[in-house]
Amino acid sequence: MITTNLTGESLSGSQTLLGDGSELIAVAPAGGQSLPGTFRNLSRAQATAVIEKAATAFGPYAKLHPHQRADFLDAIADELESLGDPLLERANAESGLPMARLTGERGRTCGQLRMFARVVREGSWVDARINTALPDRAPLPRPDIRRMLVPLGPVVIFGASNFPLAFSVAGGDTASALAAGCPVVVKAHPAHPGTSELVGRAIAAAAQKTGMPDGTFSLVYTDNEVAQAMVAHPATKAVGFTGSRAGGLALLRVAQARPEPIPVYAEMSSVNPTVILHDALQERGTAIAEGLAGSIVLGVGQFCTNPGLVFLTRSDALQSFLDTLAQKIRATAPATMLTPGIRDNYSRGIGTLTSSPDVMLLAQADTDARPDHTEGRPAVMTTTGAAFRANPALSHEVFGPSSLVVVCADETELATCIRQMEGQLTATLYATESDLSNTAHDWVLILQERAGRVLFGGFPTGVEVCEAMTHGGPFPATTDARTTSVGTAAIERFARPVSYQSFPDALLPLALQQANPLEIWREVNGEQSKES
Amino acid sequence: MITTNLTGESLSGSQTLLGDGSELIAVAPAGGQSLPGTFRNLSRAQATAVIEKAATAFGPYAKLHPHQRADFLDAIADELESLGDPLLERANAESGLPMARLTGERGRTCGQLRMFARVVREGSWVDARINTALPDRAPLPRPDIRRMLVPLGPVVIFGASNFPLAFSVAGGDTASALAAGCPVVVKAHPAHPGTSELVGRAIAAAAQKTGMPDGTFSLVYTDNEVAQAMVAHPATKAVGFTGSRAGGLALLRVAQARPEPIPVYAEMSSVNPTVILHDALQERGTAIAEGLAGSIVLGVGQFCTNPGLVFLTRSDALQSFLDTLAQKIRATAPATMLTPGIRDNYSRGIGTLTSSPDVMLLAQADTDARPDHTEGRPAVMTTTGAAFRANPALSHEVFGPSSLVVVCADETELATCIRQMEGQLTATLYATESDLSNTAHDWVLILQERAGRVLFGGFPTGVEVCEAMTHGGPFPATTDARTTSVGTAAIERFARPVSYQSFPDALLPLALQQANPLEIWREVNGEQSKES
Repeated sequence: MITTNLTGESLSGSQTLLGDGSELIAVAPAGGQSLPGTFRNLSRAQATAVIEKAATAFGPYAKLHPHQRADFLDAIADELESLGDPLLERANAESGLPMARLTGERGRTCGQLRMFARVVREGSWVDARINTALPDRAPLPRPDIRRMLVPLGPVVIFGASNFPLAFSVAGGDTASALAAGCPVVVKAHPAHPGTSELVGRAIAAAAQKTGMPDGTFSLVYTDNEVAQAMVAHPATKAVGFTGSRAGGLALLRVAQARPEPIPVYAEMSSVNPTVILHDALQERGTAIAEGLAGSIVLGVGQFCTNPGLVFLTRSDALQSFLDTLAQKIRATAPATMLTPGIRDNYSRGIGTLTSSPDVMLLAQADTDARPDHTEGRPAVMTTTGAAFRANPALSHEVFGPSSLVVVCADETELATCIRQMEGQLTATLYATESDLSNTAHDWVLILQERAGRVLFGGFPTGVEVCEAMTHGGPFPATTDARTTSVGTAAIERFARPVSYQSFPDALLPLALQQANPLEIWREVNGEQSKES
Repeated sequence: MITTNLTGESLSGSQTLLGDGSELIAVAPAGGQSLPGTFRNLSRAQATAVIEKAATAFGPYAKLHPHQRADFLDAIADELESLGDPLLERANAESGLPMARLTGERGRTCGQLRMFARVVREGSWVDARINTALPDRAPLPRPDIRRMLVPLGPVVIFGASNFPLAFSVAGGDTASALAAGCPVVVKAHPAHPGTSELVGRAIAAAAQKTGMPDGTFSLVYTDNEVAQAMVAHPATKAVGFTGSRAGGLALLRVAQARPEPIPVYAEMSSVNPTVILHDALQERGTAIAEGLAGSIVLGVGQFCTNPGLVFLTRSDALQSFLDTLAQKIRATAPATMLTPGIRDNYSRGIGTLTSSPDVMLLAQADTDARPDHTEGRPAVMTTTGAAFRANPALSHEVFGPSSLVVVCADETELATCIRQMEGQLTATLYATESDLSNTAHDWVLILQERAGRVLFGGFPTGVEVCEAMTHGGPFPATTDARTTSVGTAAIERFARPVSYQSFPDALLPLALQQANPLEIWREVNGEQSKES
């Protein structure tokens, strides 16, 4: 592995900044050896100065022509690609994720950056609406009023452990906040500080090449207390987070306790129920079990869309479904998880579940997990609908390669189980036409009330980056069900509407000027139009 | 005045419900006499049952064809109009607002309802986005993914004192939530319980005529404690509120402390700064002073967009501006305010300001206010930029017909004053071309960072109901700067995106079906389209 001269410094805009705080070293989950580089956390005063620099960048950055912001995003993608294999090798060492997966994740990360560059260049995302003046209206004339979305201000973003590229320093939150016109301060995730430094420097290089205002992007190493102080700082106007429920809720509480509360977009926990109705199980039970096993162990189960709960009703087809699922899980080798902490939580979660008298271990991987390789051992368990209804702990997320199959007495009990669940990122329905014509329940409505994405068949892992994606959902899947953290609509999280009344044309933002110089879609007196 | 058989009952969907709690009687602010009707607050158990009925209505109401919801909204407007003068007479007695104003407010209220009916019938507000399947894409095929906005669930709405029609039982919050597909429970404002009953019954009649599910609309009389319990109820999914900062923050705290936090859309307080630059004051100072005086006393100053602070710099033109403003205020007669409490707060607010050694009373109405007519006496005061910067209390809202003129040493001090202000609904700029070419400050950016609507000249009172309106702004103007409570975009507050992946066409909501049966605008693979 190549060391690539890691300095362990934070980036305060264009300047490097060695922290006054404690030291941080990366440890390889596969093997436990320390990796090169000593990272130093910032003190509270240092972190405050970074936020304040971001605040000075806000006005100039927000005023840039949108195409300049797009060029910046494209340049970040180019810089990331030009880092080449050393980036992937460092990410592989720090996360234990395979090179093939990281190669794909880099592609996704660059794809997201370029997608937001296209969104900003196309420009219609600002949702411009124009009502022209009606000077002769009675009893009162109508003034000219024009509104569009404007950026919120500096955003603090917390990198995720399970996507060291796509949801970290240059990930979807950063890309969408920069696209919206907000300066970004990223807190590096302590599990991959070297990857973070490499990516952070690539963004800084892109910022310099495209002439961004100093402070548009910063990367900081901090402990949790200092990170919370950054969220509490008056100049911070929004927070992006992907991680644990405890971590997300802690930030939410800090943001709510501020004199000026700010939005927190935390994507936290989800068990992603899969519902298999009777005839679907009968017709395709074995195929579903095979696919489901693959989805459960994909990425060692370290996806927020991992299918953690499977609901079905007792029937003739049940046993062969369970047999197939068990067989596939037994045949899957344990694999390295992201950190010892995540692996320990996983093992503890499985232990707690299987120690319940209501839960049976259906199968686990034939091979033991190697502790020194931080491996997680795939497992599937079963329980009954009655037990599930009585014990809320059975619906808690166990982050890792496992799933709990809930066998219900009938569809009514199954519906009751789903209705008592908390909010989810996804919910999947397997049903045949006969299932749907025979059922007494509106399954789509039941699932959609609890999730941001409903799948008809298929598997929830694999979150397509596109216009129509919702990667979000009711609490506690996220702290704000009105948003998505994946796809083009993610940009809307970092903006708010402003109306301009009776403005001279030259003083208006380009998006609202009479000639429509950006050639965007606008709603003009109620009609969609690209005209001037 | 006509009594119109007021029963004092709440409405739990289609059923009337006499409260088990304390009694409430309306008192006329102009004269102090008790008005007919004895209203009974609901107990907590009764209010809980109302929320639970709303929850049962949610699924059926959300599933209605959008045109049925539009018919319901139109029917509400028709029923309101058919109440005729007795509605206005009762509102006049309860609020002290003149008949002409209430006639206009009824027009606005019905106009809002019909506007949202048009929005729902047109249908594009659901922001449908479609990515069709790419089965041959490498390395992985893309599934078909379609997303749209769906309603959040039951909404609790708090009527406002200062708009007994347009921001109360059938006001903008109710209209937009019903339009989005959410059942609504309105808490009647205790200052106009009779008006609330009349309007509530009109909505119930419209619901019955158009066949809405029982529980789609309810109207409750409750005390604050029971109202907070409704906000805390798990079935409640959002809150709309217009009123005081203390009231809005209390609801926000309840909503945040729930196991599942929910959005609160509280429109609370704003002092709506007006900035007059040097040459504009020179050229048009007298005309601005005349218009401003009119805006300050409009509706006895009881608008959230009342211009409470005026900023300008010392110059030759200052004295004649102040003279004109003073003369207009002196000549304005005191008038009846909404409630004795609001009048007392106003008098106290003026007293506190003028007792400050830094504040001078510039003028007040020549005529004394009559206490038994709950009158407020118009007033304008002056202070210096230095005093304003040193004393945050000078920027607090004084709800009523007054304004504080802040005379700054220069533009830099003026900019500093604005920058230290909290979030506002509006900010107004008076500037000539020479002002703008000579200034060192980006006034539009400075004002837009603090407000939801920026006016170039004119006066902030008078909030146009249209597509381009933003009636919102950074905290504490509202609790959610990303939204507006006036105009078509208000509907978005009560919805969230859901994606449907790999769905059979017949199982999709109409808005997402292949044939585009609703003929709405959709984003299909990145392109705006009305095609199927």
